[in-house]
Order: sequence, then C-alpha cells, then structure tokens
Amino acid sequence: MTKTARAYTNIALIKYWGKKDPALKLPYTNSLSLTLDKYYTDTTSQIISESKDIISLDGDILDDKSSQRIRNYLDVVREKFDRQEHLQVVSTNHVPMAAGFASSASGFAALAASIDQTFQLNLSKRSLSSLARLGSGSATRSIFGGFVEWHAGNDDDTSYAEPINEDPQFDIVVLSAVISTAKKEISSTQGMEMSVKTSPFYSSWCTLVDSETEDIKQAIANKDLQKIGEIAEHNALSMHALTLSANPPYTYFAPETIEVIKLVKHLRSTGILAYVTIDAGPNVKIICSQESVSEVQRYLNNSLKNVQTFEAHIGKGIQYI
Amino acid sequence: MTKTARAYTNIALIKYWGKKDPALKLPYTNSLSLTLDKYYTDTTSQIISESKDIISLDGDILDDKSSQRIRNYLDVVREKFDRQEHLQVVSTNHVPMAAGFASSASGFAALAASIDQTFQLNLSKRSLSSLARLGSGSATRSIFGGFVEWHAGNDDDTSYAEPINEDPQFDIVVLSAVISTAKKEISSTQGMEMSVKTSPFYSSWCTLVDSETEDIKQAIANKDLQKIGEIAEHNALSMHALTLSANPPYTYFAPETIEVIKLVKHLRSTGILAYVTIDAGPNVKIICSQESVSEVQRYLNNSLKNVQTFEAHIGKGIQYI
Repeated sequence: MTKTARAYTNIALIKYWGKKDPALKLPYTNSLSLTLDKYYTDTTSQIISESKDIISLDGDILDDKSSQRIRNYLDVVREKFDRQEHLQVVSTNHVPMAAGFASSASGFAALAASIDQTFQLNLSKRSLSSLARLGSGSATRSIFGGFVEWHAGNDDDTSYAEPINEDPQFDIVVLSAVISTAKKEISSTQGMEMSVKTSPFYSSWCTLVDSETEDIKQAIANKDLQKIGEIAEHNALSMHALTLSANPPYTYFAPETIEVIKLVKHLRSTGILAYVTIDAGPNVKIICSQESVSEVQRYLNNSLKNVQTFEAHIGKGIQYI
Repeated sequence: MTKTARAYTNIALIKYWGKKDPALKLPYTNSLSLTLDKYYTDTTSQIISESKDIISLDGDILDDKSSQRIRNYLDVVREKFDRQEHLQVVSTNHVPMAAGFASSASGFAALAASIDQTFQLNLSKRSLSSLARLGSGSATRSIFGGFVEWHAGNDDDTSYAEPINEDPQFDIVVLSAVISTAKKEISSTQGMEMSVKTSPFYSSWCTLVDSETEDIKQAIANKDLQKIGEIAEHNALSMHALTLSANPPYTYFAPETIEVIKLVKHLRSTGILAYVTIDAGPNVKIICSQESVSEVQRYLNNSLKNVQTFEAHIGKGIQYI
C-alpha cells in the first residue's frame, strides 16, 4: 500500500501566461511562485485489474465526464512510461472554493507524486515536476516548497521546476481577498490563448517576464519583501494588461477587484506593506508581511463587507503521509 | 469688434497618449477623434492697453493662479508671432463638468481661433490647429468637425489636424456614462509621462496606433460603425493597459468603469451596437448608432442608478458667431 501524497497550492508571483506547446504544456516564459501552507490535495492510487480507471474525489466516484481531464492525464502517463495498468485514484481536496485558490496545481502535483509511488517510477523531484506539468502547468511548481521557479524549457524534459528558497521562516504572508467563487466566463487556457494570439504587447510581455524573474530572484535572495511585492504587483497587472489589449479585449476584473487594488494602494501610502497579485479571475491575493497582515485584514474587512479574507503562509513541497 | 469663436469638444477614437516634445506638445503618434455637437466653448478677445492680460471665464475674472495656463499660452502665441499687445479674453464654457467631457480641447481651440481674429493672423485651418495644439494637445483636433486626424509631425508646423469626414449625417452617437466628476488623482499629462517612461509595452503601443489609425480611416470611409466601434474599444483599452503595466502601475478605472464595460459587452452579445472608449478618468463613453442609443441609455439607467448619461452627436468645426 502506498502512502498518501500531499501537495500544496501555489500562487504565482511571476505569472505563467501563454503556452508555446499546448499538448506538452510548455510555457513561453519561466514563472516563479510561492507554495502556500494550509491549502492542499491528498491523493492515493493503486493498481486495479479493471478495464478502466476509477476516480474518486472528496468521497464521490466521478462519472466519465467529470473525470475526463484526469483520465486523459493517466493515459498520457501510461504512454510516457509504457505502462498498461489502470488505477484507482482517491483524492481529497483541502483547497476550498471559498478561499479563491486554484486547486488544479495541488491536484495534479499530488496525483503525479502518487502515481510515481504506485508505478514505482522513482522519479527525481525535477522529473516529478515535469510529470505534474503534463496535468496542469501550475502543478509543475507545487512539487517544491517556498519560492519555486519553473523553467520554460523546450521539450518535456527541459520544462521543470526548481526550488529557489524553501526557508519556512521567510517573512511573507498571502491574504486572499475573495470577491467571487463563480466559474469564470473565460478559462485561463482560453484567456492565455487569446492574449498570445491577439495582444500586440505579448512579445514585450515575454521580455518583461525574463527580466522580472531575475529581479525577483535577487529580491528573494536579499529577503527584500517590499521589492518582491513591487515586482509581483507589476508583473500581475502587466498580465492583466494583456487581456485588455487582446482583440477583442476582455478582463478578469470585477468592480470589487478595482476596489481592492485601490484599497491596497491606499494602505501602502500609509506605510503598510501590501501588494496585490491577481490570477485569471476577480479575486485578489495580497502580499503582506507578518507585521502588516492583521492590519490589512482588519482594514479590508471593515471597508468591504462582502469580501472574505483567507490567510496563508509559506508552505512545503510534496509530502508523503 | 471680432466675432465670438465657438469650438466643440471632441472624443478620441484613436487615443493621444504620450508627448515626444512636452513644450511643443508633439505626440509620439497620430490620433483620430470625433468632434461632438452640444458641448462647446465660446471665446472672444480684444487688444487692451493694460500691462497684463485679463482672463474671464463664465463671468468671473480669473486670478493669476487660475489663469496661469492661459497666460502662458498667450505668451507663447505672442512670442511665435512677434506681438506685444495684451488681451482681454472672455470665455464661456458649455462643457458641463457633469457631462464628463474634457473642456480643454474646446477651450484652447476657441481661444486660438479668437486670437487668430483679434491679431488678424489669417491662419489657415491647418495652422490654426497647430496653434491650438500649443495650448492643449486635444485642442488640435477641435478646429475641424466630424472625424479628425491629428498628424504627430516632427515640429510645430508638421503637427496639425486634418478633417477625415465631416458628414453631419454620419450615423454615430456618443453616450457619456458619468461615474465621477471629481478631479483625477493622476492628470493625463502625468499619466502619459509615466506610461512613456515605464510601460514595457509603450513602443508596441505606437506601432498599434499606426495600424489602427489606418484601419479606422478605412472603416470611416466604409461607414462601418461596428468596425469603428471595435477598433476604438480595442485602442482605448490598450491605452489603459499601458497604465496597468507602468511601474508603479496605476489605473483610471473606478469599480463602476468595470460595471459599464461589462454591461456594454452584455448588450453587444444581445445584438445591440455599443462599444466603449475611455479617456484618462473613470467615465465611459459609449459609441452607439442612432438606432441603438435609446436602448443602451435605457438599459444603463435601469442597471446603474448612480450613473448619469449624456448624449452627443457628430459636431462641427470652429464657428464664428
């Protein structure tokens, strides 16, 4: 019996936005994230003698349609390692919809780690991150803890993640300000594709990501949280500039997204450390310090009654429990 | 006694965003606007034997501070034409703050036209547009009616406006959705400068404007209002993408700006002709047809109780009355 693989979600500080190879999920650029504690997926798997995979999520066996993406992934993994056995996968998600974090990163990272055990592949962490990538791009980074860089690469083997700093004491807190948990109209896959194909700014975005990745690594080495926040905020809003300049334009912002951006800017003007980062949706993640987070939370809760907040800290890479 | 010069405001469909020469107000790119009816400035001027100019606006004589920009402009004009006389300028603004249109375009266009008369300069319309430009960039375009292109140029003489289509029957209506009339925190001059200096997308913006100017001229020639709207909306939101990607990032959007953008997108999905354009502020101008405008207005008034709407149509160039 294999152990349960646990993977945590992560939040990108330098965004992944655009696939140069959609099948292999090879991105146009590197990206850099922070793995968080508290929000994770637990997955076990075992070989079964059935003619198809059995997928269970949060206690329910999924029908073919709901489990299509996972089944396709298992096919890809079998093909890659020349295996035939079907699997029973049992997964429990501790990334509540309400908290505004994506669960595909922790989900596919935990699944990859579980399969590695069950098929006794003995993959290195680096290869495991490439394997997770075939499920979901952002899962590549959830193999490692703390700050993680995903190298874009040029093929399956050279597109992998690498830990940058896993210090559990690093002073950084992420506050999720949840505006909506409704399914978004434009998925991130669709959004990326529209930006790549139609934004006149896309090639400059790739150049920007290269330089901001270097800059944020320097800021992480210096433990300079203000600089980390400045770079992350600029990078995130530049990603959203790609959606506004796509043709036709679109935006993931809700009215309250603008409210939170303006609140954070105001807080900063009063000397409180707070920077926003925003993924392909209306919710805002606020980068704080241990010192600033309670004040940011209090201010947000007082000003925006309908916005719930969830706090997370630096988290670990894959665990086997 | 000279006649009163009347100039109307205009709304840019291809935005002016960035000065390559701040003193001469030479822009980095061409821009293209629609002169509107209804919102205008009336200005008269006469030579006086005082030692300084007297500036009166809406019935009040302005103090030195409030009239500084106009005084500086008069100095520039005197220098340019080697004149010494001081002027009494009497101006009446019919561009109400509440309607969300800029008044500097009509203001400096009317002032330039009035001075041309009073100093008997006998300027061509083209030279008059260059003269208006020295007061306010967007005033360059208010010399002409209908659709107007401002050629960026390389010096004072080659940066001027030209009419593209002055047909008063052209089927286009602009609905101003007014969210706020408060003075903006970042002026357009400051905003432009920040975008030029720090947005990694600025040079691609200039290339984009070149091609969208050609495309919209073709759409105007074809009287293709849908195409005009598509290009104008993309151009405006790409300009706002420059603010989000500036460093540090900023935005002119208010929460309600996003609401109006989403409402217009929704209306369009139901087959109603409506496109947004947004200048350096939170207010949204909606490009409609004669047929669609009443439905757009009704829908906006029902959905957003705090947003007032003001309708304008294609307007004329400088008038002497």
